[in-house]
Amino acid sequence: MKTNRLLDLFHSGQGAVAGWMSLDSAYAAELVGASGFDAVVIDCQHGMAGHAQMLAMLQALSHTAAVPLVRVSQNNLGEINRALDAGAYGVICPLVNSVAEAVAFGRACRYPLDGMQGDRSFGPARGLLVGGADYSQHANAQMLALAMIETRAGLDAVEAIAAVAQIDGLFIGPSDLGIALGLGPAAAHTHPVLAAAIARIQQACQAAGKVAGIWCGSAEMARDMLTQGLQLVVPGHDAIWLKAEMARRLAVVRARPVAG
Amino acid sequence: MKTNRLLDLFHSGQGAVAGWMSLDSAYAAELVGASGFDAVVIDCQHGMAGHAQMLAMLQALSHTAAVPLVRVSQNNLGEINRALDAGAYGVICPLVNSVAEAVAFGRACRYPLDGMQGDRSFGPARGLLVGGADYSQHANAQMLALAMIETRAGLDAVEAIAAVAQIDGLFIGPSDLGIALGLGPAAAHTHPVLAAAIARIQQACQAAGKVAGIWCGSAEMARDMLTQGLQLVVPGHDAIWLKAEMARRLAVVRARPVAG
Amino acid sequence: MKTNRLLDLFHSGQGAVAGWMSLDSAYAAELVGASGFDAVVIDCQHGMAGHAQMLAMLQALSHTAAVPLVRVSQNNLGEINRALDAGAYGVICPLVNSVAEAVAFGRACRYPLDGMQGDRSFGPARGLLVGGADYSQHANAQMLALAMIETRAGLDAVEAIAAVAQIDGLFIGPSDLGIALGLGPAAAHTHPVLAAAIARIQQACQAAGKVAGIWCGSAEMARDMLTQGLQLVVPGHDAIWLKAEMARRLAVVRARPVAG
Amino acid sequence: MKTNRLLDLFHSGQGAVAGWMSLDSAYAAELVGASGFDAVVIDCQHGMAGHAQMLAMLQALSHTAAVPLVRVSQNNLGEINRALDAGAYGVICPLVNSVAEAVAFGRACRYPLDGMQGDRSFGPARGLLVGGADYSQHANAQMLALAMIETRAGLDAVEAIAAVAQIDGLFIGPSDLGIALGLGPAAAHTHPVLAAAIARIQQACQAAGKVAGIWCGSAEMARDMLTQGLQLVVPGHDAIWLKAEMARRLAVVRARPVAG
Amino acid sequence: MKTNRLLDLFHSGQGAVAGWMSLDSAYAAELVGASGFDAVVIDCQHGMAGHAQMLAMLQALSHTAAVPLVRVSQNNLGEINRALDAGAYGVICPLVNSVAEAVAFGRACRYPLDGMQGDRSFGPARGLLVGGADYSQHANAQMLALAMIETRAGLDAVEAIAAVAQIDGLFIGPSDLGIALGLGPAAAHTHPVLAAAIARIQQACQAAGKVAGIWCGSAEMARDMLTQGLQLVVPGHDAIWLKAEMARRLAVVRARPVAG
Amino acid sequence: MKTNRLLDLFHSGQGAVAGWMSLDSAYAAELVGASGFDAVVIDCQHGMAGHAQMLAMLQALSHTAAVPLVRVSQNNLGEINRALDAGAYGVICPLVNSVAEAVAFGRACRYPLDGMQGDRSFGPARGLLVGGADYSQHANAQMLALAMIETRAGLDAVEAIAAVAQIDGLFIGPSDLGIALGLGPAAAHTHPVLAAAIARIQQACQAAGKVAGIWCGSAEMARDMLTQGLQLVVPGHDAIWLKAEMARRLAVVRARPVAG
Repeated sequence: MKTNRLLDLFHSGQGAVAGWMSLDSAYAAELVGASGFDAVVIDCQHGMAGHAQMLAMLQALSHTAAVPLVRVSQNNLGEINRALDAGAYGVICPLVNSVAEAVAFGRACRYPLDGMQGDRSFGPARGLLVGGADYSQHANAQMLALAMIETRAGLDAVEAIAAVAQIDGLFIGPSDLGIALGLGPAAAHTHPVLAAAIARIQQACQAAGKVAGIWCGSAEMARDMLTQGLQLVVPGHDAIWLKAEMARRLAVVRARPVAG
Repeated sequence: MKTNRLLDLFHSGQGAVAGWMSLDSAYAAELVGASGFDAVVIDCQHGMAGHAQMLAMLQALSHTAAVPLVRVSQNNLGEINRALDAGAYGVICPLVNSVAEAVAFGRACRYPLDGMQGDRSFGPARGLLVGGADYSQHANAQMLALAMIETRAGLDAVEAIAAVAQIDGLFIGPSDLGIALGLGPAAAHTHPVLAAAIARIQQACQAAGKVAGIWCGSAEMARDMLTQGLQLVVPGHDAIWLKAEMARRLAVVRARPVAG
Repeated sequence: MKTNRLLDLFHSGQGAVAGWMSLDSAYAAELVGASGFDAVVIDCQHGMAGHAQMLAMLQALSHTAAVPLVRVSQNNLGEINRALDAGAYGVICPLVNSVAEAVAFGRACRYPLDGMQGDRSFGPARGLLVGGADYSQHANAQMLALAMIETRAGLDAVEAIAAVAQIDGLFIGPSDLGIALGLGPAAAHTHPVLAAAIARIQQACQAAGKVAGIWCGSAEMARDMLTQGLQLVVPGHDAIWLKAEMARRLAVVRARPVAG
Repeated sequence: MKTNRLLDLFHSGQGAVAGWMSLDSAYAAELVGASGFDAVVIDCQHGMAGHAQMLAMLQALSHTAAVPLVRVSQNNLGEINRALDAGAYGVICPLVNSVAEAVAFGRACRYPLDGMQGDRSFGPARGLLVGGADYSQHANAQMLALAMIETRAGLDAVEAIAAVAQIDGLFIGPSDLGIALGLGPAAAHTHPVLAAAIARIQQACQAAGKVAGIWCGSAEMARDMLTQGLQLVVPGHDAIWLKAEMARRLAVVRARPVAG
Repeated sequence: MKTNRLLDLFHSGQGAVAGWMSLDSAYAAELVGASGFDAVVIDCQHGMAGHAQMLAMLQALSHTAAVPLVRVSQNNLGEINRALDAGAYGVICPLVNSVAEAVAFGRACRYPLDGMQGDRSFGPARGLLVGGADYSQHANAQMLALAMIETRAGLDAVEAIAAVAQIDGLFIGPSDLGIALGLGPAAAHTHPVLAAAIARIQQACQAAGKVAGIWCGSAEMARDMLTQGLQLVVPGHDAIWLKAEMARRLAVVRARPVAG
Repeated sequence: MKTNRLLDLFHSGQGAVAGWMSLDSAYAAELVGASGFDAVVIDCQHGMAGHAQMLAMLQALSHTAAVPLVRVSQNNLGEINRALDAGAYGVICPLVNSVAEAVAFGRACRYPLDGMQGDRSFGPARGLLVGGADYSQHANAQMLALAMIETRAGLDAVEAIAAVAQIDGLFIGPSDLGIALGLGPAAAHTHPVLAAAIARIQQACQAAGKVAGIWCGSAEMARDMLTQGLQLVVPGHDAIWLKAEMARRLAVVRARPVAG
């Protein structure tokens, strides 16, 4: 089976940088996938892609070097299985607030094979195309299950959540977490309260031998988080990138002397 | 009828800056349309949008301030009429190489009403939704017909093409024109040969009282062209913008000290 | 092969009433197809359907009693062949302005089989699903080719166009024809000039043993045209129907005494 | 933030009339949105639109005056959040049968900001495009959460459901409610049993200071319900409207004397 | 109402053979539907179709003789109702593991009419188009609800699940069941452990007067299962069929003597 | 630039076997692309794919080993350019009936760079993603232009057509050619008249140093044609494959002893 390059990056201690798709366009996905990111996350929670677009984006990402991940809209067996059967090499699940929810999420990502406890139903579909004929034998080891910590309840239970066997790591949603901590959605990651929460989540991951990742609004925050030891960072998303570059270009053009 | 704001900008001598869509996503289109451009061009020649995506993008652009234009894939009555019936406020037609082609293009954009010679078939459809109930009475005056000059033949006939009554202006394709002039697709607009061709096209427009526009790869070229007096400039397109910002962000993130 | 019920209606002298789709929705198409029309025309000229939507609408119409027709965007072999291969039982071609254009259109609808001169390329595809395994043997006889007369040139050549062997009939576009005759797009069919043109087209069809059809904005006009002997009428289209019924219902609701 | 015009209508005591989309077509949606309704509901429960069509319809509605609402397929955090992030200004949730379900639904519509208890995850997406840059600060106040009362259990708990803080109002599903009351799906709203249930729901809303709305099969029922003081009425849906007008037109055309 | 031909086949003791769609193509669906199967199952669990594709496939299947069924992604009222409202004549629900889950599934397929206990919400939509105007009166009797038995828990409760009133039958998922029984996903149906489980499920159905069906990887297994008395068999799916025939043809072509 | 593996196969004298897509499904395309064919042709003439589906199928094929080709609906600059810009590595053009048409087709496939005469407009788009950053420098040499010979006129001019500089080879449409030769669409390739025509086309290619290819209905014909020295063969298409395997499996299942 084609292996998950993110696992190699995590094991080697290098960390990984992921792109993030809010657009519902397979062409946009392959542009992002071909631009140097280690992974690309298709966001089916706050992004625009529904099932058909997710599938088309996974298909287009398959020829790029980026590992395809999906953020599902919720902790739901059916939806998680569809993302994996469509060829995702990992799932980011929002709003994991308890050990029970983490177990449900993790089980949804695993076949009940080889001693792993799981609820993933068998029918690998595109997994065979992107992973190979032996997909089902290795999928349990290659698929990433990343649980989002972004509520007060999730943070309170973070050490136990990190220890759930079927979970590979935690992924921090700083906007929702900032709201939950009373800071609002735009708190800086350097704010002591938010920074402490991030550190606690990171430590829970380290203690459990799991990966810690975080969504970042800016490249600078992503750089800082990597430096701090988080292993998966996301320096904004496609809509943010478009807006930033359009603003930059419009400023250049509009700054001209008025044509006479 | 809702008027074409580009006409006001041209009449007032201000010039206009257009965004350009190679992506096939209505969400991307409205993001671009809401970012400060005077117009947005949906590229159905080299971009990814087919008919259905063009329609969806025109629908999504309708709530933004940007004037929606379509570059059609070719000089074709049926395709041009469909773009206009779908609500475009103007058409950019590639590869107009002769007066006859310019006349055919221009006629395709006009109803044979009120003394205008035209071949546009009646059936305004979304025109009524975006323009108003009196769309068909004013569409001839509000729709922009911009003929691309991008071949040797087109350049040789540019003065006569500019004078075609049904044409509002010329739009320069510098890559194809650069190839036609023996410079290759990436010639700088400051290259004397290309600069002379641009100047000739601009002068043909001025002599005929028409608009001159140009596709530009960079914001700096767009600024220069506006300063030089061209009235419609396009500082790159969405895929270029995405790539630029992704490269910038990846450079910041990858520049970190290696995590230990 | 499943026969074309419109031919039976025409042969029996009954005339036929067709629905007309400007919407790009297969569900809308099957609603219209199941509502009592003898045929449904998918309008790919002024309507919103592109190729994929046309196909989906043809698929959805296949379980209804209505004969599926397509108005193509232009007189184009490739597009006409695609509509037929997708299962249309007839094509309405806009803007047929000369005998040469009529011949080209008619040839596009016929296989060069059994003595018929035609340019249709072989590859029946959905024709086999909707017509049966013997589709290619009978398609020439079952597919309707209706040429639109809607310009001055078309009207001037109408008798010769009607006589073109590969054409089954003429279809009148009264808005464009009204414009061509100097009456504007909204001339009444009872206006003497337009009425005379309609009568001339009808007579040309009768003389050539062909069918005459016409697009109508209202049910009353459709009734009058049938009574006058035209064989195919279209009492408006889906967007017109929606608007009419919405206006009627809103008037009822808004007429209430104001709630206190 | 662009405000929700329905709130103004409710506050001023005028009541509002909404269109209702069962079709999966953005063009149909903008036709309905431009026809005089105060709001348009995209029905993702019994209508044909899935996620992608819902998004396209919301995009097309954004240039009309109608307030865009979505009826979700079920009481589900992920689906409700996606509708809001796609730009809906309110959600109608079917089958709210208890206070607990009403709380879950209401919380799904609210950010946990400014003292409101909510579960909506942060990521406003199209909210920023249709509402403005300050969307997240005002969304809690502008988004409508309307819980459907359409079962025996829901009716029995209606006073307590109406009092749930995160709910703006109740919306009556008369077909399901009629079935639940033993009357079948087509009971008249004047049937004493159904009328009593409607009155009870209306009174529960009045007591709680909430809005009462109802789906109506006809314009006359909608008028009566508005007169009775309900604030949001829906005089049928697009498929019903199409069928009504097609039947009317076919009757006119078919009533002709038979052509000789 | 158009009746469900599968019921006739089951009642007459003949058994039925169903096609199975993993592809997301309406054209593929109608090809399969027209090829001699008694039914076609659109797989929304492991197949590629999302809501829009499911709808398009149901629309395309409506003109074929095959009874359209949908396997939903999970036991979910909203999703099940959408499949039925889109015109499916039956639902296969994965992972039914308890009587409570079976009751929930069965209730989701039934209107609470005529003494049946059900949770299906009223709004038949395409049901009216494919079933007829009296759809809602007969749908409870015509729609098939087939619960999948494919886990240890499901097998342990199979007799009680089979007895649930709203369920028409059980459908065996041999891959998941094989995993659950410790045999792995590719166990032969003749393996004693799997064969015993199949026999137990079959007997539970017989005892309860319900239908037993099974997914089969091969035509031979399907034949054997029918011979054994199961009533609904599926000899593989479209992707398997494509692969088999491509391999066969490539072997023929590649076996040629090398061209000189 | 990633090179065109078909060129290697042709140069080495091995010949190539291509799959052929009539389905409009990207998942089907990648299944075919991953099954051992040297190339996959997306048929936009008689197949179901329009522009959007063609693009999605090209995207999905990019991760397979098969070279992606497109058969366009007609000899049309705009459509041919769109196929190439979408990432096709070659175009098959139907109905090339004269040298002039062959020149127009060939020019449409070539940039006017490096001494090649061409009309392809610059804007490589997906070409950059699938070919690499130097796509435009090498595309002229890597893209295949295959002209179909399938009419009497085409056959009469075949030697001159084969000699057109911008054409890489000829591709035989045996059904249309059989009709043109008076044999009907289903003539055997061994029929002396058709065999002579095939031989003449093959010889014209050999004389001009070009490739000869042919569509074949069966694997046996494809094998024979390869053996005879044609370099590109197509053993049927996806719908044919599906039908063949479904018939085979249904025969096995239906052959069972009737269940008692």
